[in-house]
Amino acid sequence: MDAPDAPHQTDISNIGEFGLIAVMRDTLGEPSDEDLVTGIGDDAAVYRVGDGEVHLLTTDTLTEGIHFDRAFMPMEHLGFKAMSVNVSDIVAMNAEPRYATVTVGLSQNVTVEMAETIYEGIREACDAYDVTVVGGDTVSAHSLSLSVSVVGEAAEDDVVYRGGAQVGDKLCVTGDIGASYAGLKALVRNRQQLQEQGEDFQPNLDPFSYVIRRHLAPPAQLKTVRDWAAAGVQPHALIDISDGLASEVHHVCEASDVGAQLYEPALPIDPETRNTATEFGEDVGVYALFGGEDYELVFTMPEAALDAVDPQSYTVIGDIERPEDEEHPVLLQRADGENVPLQPGGFDHFDDE
Amino acid sequence: MDAPDAPHQTDISNIGEFGLIAVMRDTLGEPSDEDLVTGIGDDAAVYRVGDGEVHLLTTDTLTEGIHFDRAFMPMEHLGFKAMSVNVSDIVAMNAEPRYATVTVGLSQNVTVEMAETIYEGIREACDAYDVTVVGGDTVSAHSLSLSVSVVGEAAEDDVVYRGGAQVGDKLCVTGDIGASYAGLKALVRNRQQLQEQGEDFQPNLDPFSYVIRRHLAPPAQLKTVRDWAAAGVQPHALIDISDGLASEVHHVCEASDVGAQLYEPALPIDPETRNTATEFGEDVGVYALFGGEDYELVFTMPEAALDAVDPQSYTVIGDIERPEDEEHPVLLQRADGENVPLQPGGFDHFDDE
Repeated sequence: MDAPDAPHQTDISNIGEFGLIAVMRDTLGEPSDEDLVTGIGDDAAVYRVGDGEVHLLTTDTLTEGIHFDRAFMPMEHLGFKAMSVNVSDIVAMNAEPRYATVTVGLSQNVTVEMAETIYEGIREACDAYDVTVVGGDTVSAHSLSLSVSVVGEAAEDDVVYRGGAQVGDKLCVTGDIGASYAGLKALVRNRQQLQEQGEDFQPNLDPFSYVIRRHLAPPAQLKTVRDWAAAGVQPHALIDISDGLASEVHHVCEASDVGAQLYEPALPIDPETRNTATEFGEDVGVYALFGGEDYELVFTMPEAALDAVDPQSYTVIGDIERPEDEEHPVLLQRADGENVPLQPGGFDHFDDE
Repeated sequence: MDAPDAPHQTDISNIGEFGLIAVMRDTLGEPSDEDLVTGIGDDAAVYRVGDGEVHLLTTDTLTEGIHFDRAFMPMEHLGFKAMSVNVSDIVAMNAEPRYATVTVGLSQNVTVEMAETIYEGIREACDAYDVTVVGGDTVSAHSLSLSVSVVGEAAEDDVVYRGGAQVGDKLCVTGDIGASYAGLKALVRNRQQLQEQGEDFQPNLDPFSYVIRRHLAPPAQLKTVRDWAAAGVQPHALIDISDGLASEVHHVCEASDVGAQLYEPALPIDPETRNTATEFGEDVGVYALFGGEDYELVFTMPEAALDAVDPQSYTVIGDIERPEDEEHPVLLQRADGENVPLQPGGFDHFDDE
């Protein structure tokens, strides 16, 4: 369909999300701002504001039909989750969130009452995270969306990056993982059953109440960061789980130039998450490793420093090691003892290669 | 279609954009942050970062089909304009822009080359405005969109708000106005002709080159703010023209609790804007007063202070006065001498009442 002299056009799927971020970085060039500590590439940008203090800036958008399904996303949870996702990026730099702006993209089928309920969820998050909304806008949009930016603050020396992991560190995760994905599975099946069976369908989501809540209204782990500050400890490396544990551990290893050994039996998984996987006849390890949207923290810390941290607040899931194989920096020891290379988005069995 | 016990739902059009912002403010409650100088309600939020310095934060989104038409919006201009719109909000507080985050919402028909061209436009704006992009993301979306947040900085005493206008001030505007709307008219007609006549159509947009550029790639008035700083002067009140001159003057009057007398013959209008209005058989005053998207600055200043400002950089278009009629704080003296109340979105003839 192109005219003969039209320039060549490449489908975005050819280079993927990370390829596109590389295009952005290449096109924008290296930043030269003297007060900028970290630009594109970590969970949030970091820039100095004087007196050894830095501010952090992050932004994230939730769009209907892509990041959430209005059929099962209560508007209050939507507001809360949009805030959590952004606060989590600030927390993942070991910093405190402070200010937020919220832009609500309104499609024609959104009512005043729905908008009000979204703002109630945002307010709930503001109370939970001590954040003040300082700017807000509503724009017409083809689909409902929430675009949030959050400014955080920290002492410059307290900021923790994903690139600080050291050989010998323990690899840890807060809370439990895989629940958000399990909740999504339950919600999607419930909607399908409702569509197929109509009014005859008697939904029973009680066995999934925890995992559903983890999907719809995940909390950001601000308390963990505050506990570390109170205990006077800092992780070497820190990242939050948005894409999935395997992906985040790869980010840490790549940025830190280290490898990691994970132990699958050590992964903290809630019984309800296990039951959900069983119900769907699926491997709960897949939920935990690749499910994503947990918004728990992955961190690395020397064993000695871990002694100062409440043992209830985290689980050791592996070790930071020298990477033996550049192609496969992350290894996963499975329950049967087999040690397999882990990929960011799936298992990588030697047999299949 | 609602179930009998479904809560009452109100269409957003019943309360409008400003009604919705009121809902947001009411639901979120009064901010209590001690370092927050100004939250929702001006062009940007203002918060203290120490040593008499403040940061400013603003965010704005451009969405295809709502804020721009891809049929005539070059991708490079789109990137530039998304930055300009946000930088203009910082400039409209008499501050310097510093950092930006950019989220590109990609629909399936956007290619790598288009994304790259968008980033080239963003880079051009970064160079023009001394802004560093510190964070960026790409998200899947139903339509192409650019969501930008900008952090600015200023000494706290230098920030100028929309609410500072004083009786006796001169009401001024930078540059010329109405051109952006004229450019949009020319672009829309050109697209229609192309659709109707197909390959037989020979577009000639030369007579509209200035107004089209003003629509597609409007510059933010950063130079004006820098000139004021160099001259050691500050306006009493300041706002940028996004919705249209009449609307912005109403914002200033409402926030400052004053009235204004505008003189239509004084409005700075480029000859090409006049010619475009003539070509379309329309009143160029409507373009200038209600067209919007000019991103020029409206400011009020005492006459004595104006002496220090380059007279080429602004036009006096009216006076700030005591409001005689609370219902009609803004009056417009038309070319024929008639003095009519001006509404934010149109003329208000006494005859029609």
